Amino acid sequence: MFYLIIDILGTIAFAISGVMVAMDKKLDLFGVFIIAFVTSVGGGTLRDLLIGNTPVAWLKDPTFLITILSAVVIAIVFRNKLKYLRKSLFLFDTIGIGLYTMVGIQKGLLIGLSPIMCIGLGTITASFGGVIRDILCNEIPVIFRKEIYATACILGGVGYFLLRKLPITDAYPYVGGIIIVIGIRLLAVWFKIALPSIYKN
Amino acid sequence: MFYLIIDILGTIAFAISGVMVAMDKKLDLFGVFIIAFVTSVGGGTLRDLLIGNTPVAWLKDPTFLITILSAVVIAIVFRNKLKYLRKSLFLFDTIGIGLYTMVGIQKGLLIGLSPIMCIGLGTITASFGGVIRDILCNEIPVIFRKEIYATACILGGVGYFLLRKLPITDAYPYVGGIIIVIGIRLLAVWFKIALPSIYKN
Amino acid sequence: MFYLIIDILGTIAFAISGVMVAMDKKLDLFGVFIIAFVTSVGGGTLRDLLIGNTPVAWLKDPTFLITILSAVVIAIVFRNKLKYLRKSLFLFDTIGIGLYTMVGIQKGLLIGLSPIMCIGLGTITASFGGVIRDILCNEIPVIFRKEIYATACILGGVGYFLLRKLPITDAYPYVGGIIIVIGIRLLAVWFKIALPSIYKN
Repeated sequence: MFYLIIDILGTIAFAISGVMVAMDKKLDLFGVFIIAFVTSVGGGTLRDLLIGNTPVAWLKDPTFLITILSAVVIAIVFRNKLKYLRKSLFLFDTIGIGLYTMVGIQKGLLIGLSPIMCIGLGTITASFGGVIRDILCNEIPVIFRKEIYATACILGGVGYFLLRKLPITDAYPYVGGIIIVIGIRLLAVWFKIALPSIYKN
Repeated sequence: MFYLIIDILGTIAFAISGVMVAMDKKLDLFGVFIIAFVTSVGGGTLRDLLIGNTPVAWLKDPTFLITILSAVVIAIVFRNKLKYLRKSLFLFDTIGIGLYTMVGIQKGLLIGLSPIMCIGLGTITASFGGVIRDILCNEIPVIFRKEIYATACILGGVGYFLLRKLPITDAYPYVGGIIIVIGIRLLAVWFKIALPSIYKN
Repeated sequence: MFYLIIDILGTIAFAISGVMVAMDKKLDLFGVFIIAFVTSVGGGTLRDLLIGNTPVAWLKDPTFLITILSAVVIAIVFRNKLKYLRKSLFLFDTIGIGLYTMVGIQKGLLIGLSPIMCIGLGTITASFGGVIRDILCNEIPVIFRKEIYATACILGGVGYFLLRKLPITDAYPYVGGIIIVIGIRLLAVWFKIALPSIYKN
């Protein structure tokens, strides 16, 4: 129940971030919906394709589609007020990537992948929806250029596997991993920390 | 036999639309062929990947490859005359998306998906070849910006499921759905109807 | 052992080519790594998705990840010296696409695909990592515009199937195919041969 609420909040935050990018490009109604949809489910879909978990989840469970459709309609209606929600949306988004990272890691563990690959799957789950969104909007993905985003996912994943070595029940590492992702992202934004750009001198 | 002819005509129309976009970008021979190929089979390929129907269809049946290769060669040879075929190509393309929508819906029904997801698969089948074409050509997909295209697929799919509720044999809803897709697209182009763009005031 | 060394050299060359493209776009550390990674494994990943060979290879074998990570770190540290390696990197890259073409063909033969589709899979394996790299960097893929690249793969594949008709052990066609790919690419670069661009007069 608790996880479900986080999942729904994350899905909504991702969908609205898609709506906002799509509006900047002046896409039509269908385009806005597709961008919102891929931002929300794109990462999990890529993960499921890579591990062969098909049909992909959103085809079997209409919850995602209905949630995203509702979020898109509401976001479009209140599109001139979204700026007042900026902080809430950032928070939902951050909680969402924390949860998605852990969901991706669990999927990897279920099929017996090594921790490093599980962390990779978690990072893909949390961050590649945004990558596909940016590609469809003809932009170089923002997470390749600035912001601590994927880095937070990777470190949260590392934290999860370290915590799992302690003699505690499995829920603690799970929640601990989410908290690490959220904490690093908040600190990075707070202190304006970003990965260095790489270019020739 | 009837469906096969429509399928071949649709494949050809999609391939030639790919050739025309690729020529605008002055791609080389290989680039033109790849763009034509993904325009034709990209939607069905994405659908098959999402539902886990692999190896994807065109790997198992060389008909698509041969049809597309022939269409590309002919389109390149007569590239300065293609404008005279604009209306025929538009018609083939429109018939093609009608058929592809129904093909996608059938694939969804076969694996027991809900009607709404079947309609989604049909729309992906009919319209995402063009999306991949535009991404490879470094453009924001045209169907996200203007034209009633995906909307026609969605409404045709809704029509199909409504017609299926009537006590008639299954061929009628199938053909009915195709006719709805074609009709809406023709009306939209005729009356210059497009979805509204969404942007901040 | 011999193939493994070629494979590692090819992976490294592909990864460094990714680093160089990513540096031109001034991506951050994560972006550079992802571009290097998809350049190396993107073609094989797309091939595995199309034939349903999942989980994809790099999830199961950390060799690729470790090789690419090491290559990225070294390439970044020595980023101002990479130009002195231009010729070696071109050679590794060329040997790499020769090998990757044959690897893709073998995967197709294993699941009983026709020679023409096996050649398609080989070409995808060798050249679509670069396509995904360019898409993520918001460029029209370079292999659609200039350079004999995919063409060398296709002709190497044709050579392989022709050589297989001779009464010789299977290693000869395999190595023969690689040599054909390498030879055509070197000749094309040497004599500055490219496919013709296609556009309206």
